[in-house]
Amino acid sequence: MRIEAVDLFYVAMPEVTDAGDGSQDALLVRVAAGGLTGWGECEASPLPSIAAFVCPKSHGACKPIADSVLGQSVETPADIARIAHTIAWDSMDLLQAPHTWSGIEMALWDLIGKARGEPVWRLLGYDRAHPKTPYASQLWGDTPQETRDACQAQIAAGFRAVKCGWGPFGRGTLQDDVDQLHAAREGLGPEGILLVDAGAIFGEDIEAAAARLPALEAVNATWYEEPVAGMAYEAYAAIGARSSKVRLAGGEAAHNLFMARHTIDYGKVGYVQIDCGRIGGIGPAKAVAEHAVARGVTYVNHTFTSNLALSASLQPFAGLEDHRICEFPVHTRPVAKAFCATRIEPDARGLIHVPDAPGLGVAIDPKGIRDYLLDVEIRVGGRTLYSTPSPD
Amino acid sequence: MRIEAVDLFYVAMPEVTDAGDGSQDALLVRVAAGGLTGWGECEASPLPSIAAFVCPKSHGACKPIADSVLGQSVETPADIARIAHTIAWDSMDLLQAPHTWSGIEMALWDLIGKARGEPVWRLLGYDRAHPKTPYASQLWGDTPQETRDACQAQIAAGFRAVKCGWGPFGRGTLQDDVDQLHAAREGLGPEGILLVDAGAIFGEDIEAAAARLPALEAVNATWYEEPVAGMAYEAYAAIGARSSKVRLAGGEAAHNLFMARHTIDYGKVGYVQIDCGRIGGIGPAKAVAEHAVARGVTYVNHTFTSNLALSASLQPFAGLEDHRICEFPVHTRPVAKAFCATRIEPDARGLIHVPDAPGLGVAIDPKGIRDYLLDVEIRVGGRTLYSTPSPD
Repeated sequence: MRIEAVDLFYVAMPEVTDAGDGSQDALLVRVAAGGLTGWGECEASPLPSIAAFVCPKSHGACKPIADSVLGQSVETPADIARIAHTIAWDSMDLLQAPHTWSGIEMALWDLIGKARGEPVWRLLGYDRAHPKTPYASQLWGDTPQETRDACQAQIAAGFRAVKCGWGPFGRGTLQDDVDQLHAAREGLGPEGILLVDAGAIFGEDIEAAAARLPALEAVNATWYEEPVAGMAYEAYAAIGARSSKVRLAGGEAAHNLFMARHTIDYGKVGYVQIDCGRIGGIGPAKAVAEHAVARGVTYVNHTFTSNLALSASLQPFAGLEDHRICEFPVHTRPVAKAFCATRIEPDARGLIHVPDAPGLGVAIDPKGIRDYLLDVEIRVGGRTLYSTPSPD
Repeated sequence: MRIEAVDLFYVAMPEVTDAGDGSQDALLVRVAAGGLTGWGECEASPLPSIAAFVCPKSHGACKPIADSVLGQSVETPADIARIAHTIAWDSMDLLQAPHTWSGIEMALWDLIGKARGEPVWRLLGYDRAHPKTPYASQLWGDTPQETRDACQAQIAAGFRAVKCGWGPFGRGTLQDDVDQLHAAREGLGPEGILLVDAGAIFGEDIEAAAARLPALEAVNATWYEEPVAGMAYEAYAAIGARSSKVRLAGGEAAHNLFMARHTIDYGKVGYVQIDCGRIGGIGPAKAVAEHAVARGVTYVNHTFTSNLALSASLQPFAGLEDHRICEFPVHTRPVAKAFCATRIEPDARGLIHVPDAPGLGVAIDPKGIRDYLLDVEIRVGGRTLYSTPSPD
């Protein structure tokens, strides 16, 4: 099969707000080869990602992604790795490249899976896909009472794990955060899995971040996510060394395998969180999962958009039975739901199953794309380099 | 002064080749505030960088650069740092952001320097600017004889330092590279400073990269640049530990302060090479210079385009007398020369001086922009987000 076309669709809510909600827009990727169609999704700003696909070449190590993808042969996962290698060299100086490539890479796995009648996790070498325990991800309440109620509501809704993040955490006093942590535990009850996301609020301030550790231990938090800036590995290691009970989590911004490995090896996290829509797709994410296993670190997916992105995010660790916790977006915006004809929902036991169907196992509804599609046109030097294609 | 306008100019040679020559195009930035104009240059793919400036917001941590810049007050360097901090948060998930911001940041230093009648290096806290020893950067010849001749020619042209890079190095046998290294030393004579750039050819192969060390020591090479992938810090440290004479150099791709620090602290390089057009501008580059001084590492500029970018690249270490070697592009394409009315050339002793004039000290010729300007138009959802402005 030769890659005949790569089409990029920028979909968005009519109004995009300042909320930290990544499901307000999406960049969908459709790849056509050998009469088949594969779909993927970039976790990325759509317009610069489109530009990185079509931009004129700047020099030998700064070429558009299109140059490395269009016309390439794709039969096996090794072909995907070969294209990824070309991009790593030929688009080395194009910073946006990994975000653009991530969605295309996913679509190529989807395509090869469809061609072979195999789910992607099987192409990755897993014999079976184990169910995952989803966590409901939500913001801290403005008050401890709000946090308590919100945690209680998620447990009532069937979740066994809840993540509280961002909001007022780290913005007030230490005691404010201690009160919030205890409120979360009260809301969850003694059995609920409590995950805490500080949203990098402490920058590089090790002492401020570590001051929350005794309370995190007291409420039996499972992880302490991004207490400091994502690349502040030195601070991660220093904070992690201060607790024998609570382990750090991080890695969501990794846009290559090196960054993820360094989060593990230098940052000494206990949980590495990988977004397939950023790191370069499913291939490098699987390599991170292998590295995590070798280091005794738990792999967790990072995803906050559609069920297509969710399916992709689950593939790299689908076969790792002991890596059970998974991110599961609960409050996505309509645009992120509209184009997925297949829904991934918790089963009666509250567990998530990665689709057991060819490719990523998520059918795409062109009408859902059309309803939220933004027309984009890019012209350079009198030539039209990109014009929104038809989703049909 | 309020930032009234940021204009981006995409200039390029009529034909851009696959050569590893970053001077074939440029993204120039003009910032207007308080009746003054500042100029900067992104070392970046122009189209995605323009898109990162104008793109619609995706969510609270994925906003266009324009949102953090336009209308902001700029009186002092602290204002530039404040805007950089906003971008680090509000454009956290926009991968291309640091490349776009780098050129704007430079332009803001140029603007504040002009407003105060001070060169940028003085705004950075340096009392004086020390001359630098430029190195002529060239490719390895296809044969040792070609390399010998090319090195001899640069010495004859007045250079005291030459860098040989890329080309056949690492692509043939070990003996081929040994022959090339000896040829370079013969061409330079015993006194010439020899710098070797492997162009990341060995990937993560520590043994292959280290196998060249005895020859590098024998020819008294000053540094061994990018023997492996830029972020393979583990490999850098391992290779560096194998030699007490030759020190490693790296860091050119760093797009934030963390990456540069990690190249020093984890990679254990002896020379850190920073491109102001990528790392987020002059402010973070100066922070790298301070970190380098504290660690006993030598700071070197990385730059391969215009004299505007060269001036910006020299500012962060202008006052560091012991950090003498500087990159000086010798064979840039006409587009990179056309828009700089001020030329930075070696003096009679072969030394480079950072301009002692307000701002970056490089006058811009609008005609030179016009001659190579590419018209760009970006439309999203029926609105024109960007249309190439007039350089006049």
